[in-house]
Amino acid sequence: MTSDEREIRELVSTWMAATRDGDLDTVLTLMADDVVFLVAGREPMVGKDDYAAAARTIAQSRTTIDGRSDIREIAVHGDIAYIRTWLEVLVTPADGAPMRRKGHTLSVLRKERGHWVIARDANLLAPA
Amino acid sequence: MTSDEREIRELVSTWMAATRDGDLDTVLTLMADDVVFLVAGREPMVGKDDYAAAARTIAQSRTTIDGRSDIREIAVHGDIAYIRTWLEVLVTPADGAPMRRKGHTLSVLRKERGHWVIARDANLLAPA
Repeated sequence: MTSDEREIRELVSTWMAATRDGDLDTVLTLMADDVVFLVAGREPMVGKDDYAAAARTIAQSRTTIDGRSDIREIAVHGDIAYIRTWLEVLVTPADGAPMRRKGHTLSVLRKERGHWVIARDANLLAPA
Repeated sequence: MTSDEREIRELVSTWMAATRDGDLDTVLTLMADDVVFLVAGREPMVGKDDYAAAARTIAQSRTTIDGRSDIREIAVHGDIAYIRTWLEVLVTPADGAPMRRKGHTLSVLRKERGHWVIARDANLLAPA
């Protein structure tokens, strides 16, 4: 495994752990300023601010998100990489039934100032 | 616009036209042998053969697919590129009501032997 691959694997595991812990500050360090998140049937989230606002809304509703990830592919080409990941996520609202979602993501990463960050992400998770 | 961007735009428009015309041979020239198509709630399609089999099943059912595309971003980094595209597609079965689907795709392209091909594609289209 190359050091780039190792760093990208660490990024994904840090992301999952920080999301579970509600540690938004850490999650924000793992994405590019111009990040774009694509999901089905909704407008894209564009930029860190958009992501932060959505994450704060989720946190305020005391919803927790606990997931596990299985990286299926990492391809590094210079300062650009793409990864495919299988995710299974349990979303638990404060006062509702847990919802299980699973599926793939396709993410494009950039190496910025020596560190990999998520630049584009397509989230294909569907109700399990 | 660089020549790479122009070629990638041509690839997308050729793909849409060939799909509409049921010209599978042309569509297959536009993807890498190891192409992976990700969609929500289904297993990925992996490789040209998988794609061809699915396309032939659609053709045999005399379903037509007519779409229009709007490329929202093209980013070229050497022999790798990624694009975001907004798609609106009308799927018309031979003996059923047309279904309209729309949404984004995130695609990773590779330049192989001087030509750009689709290598990875995440399809986020949802019923309109």
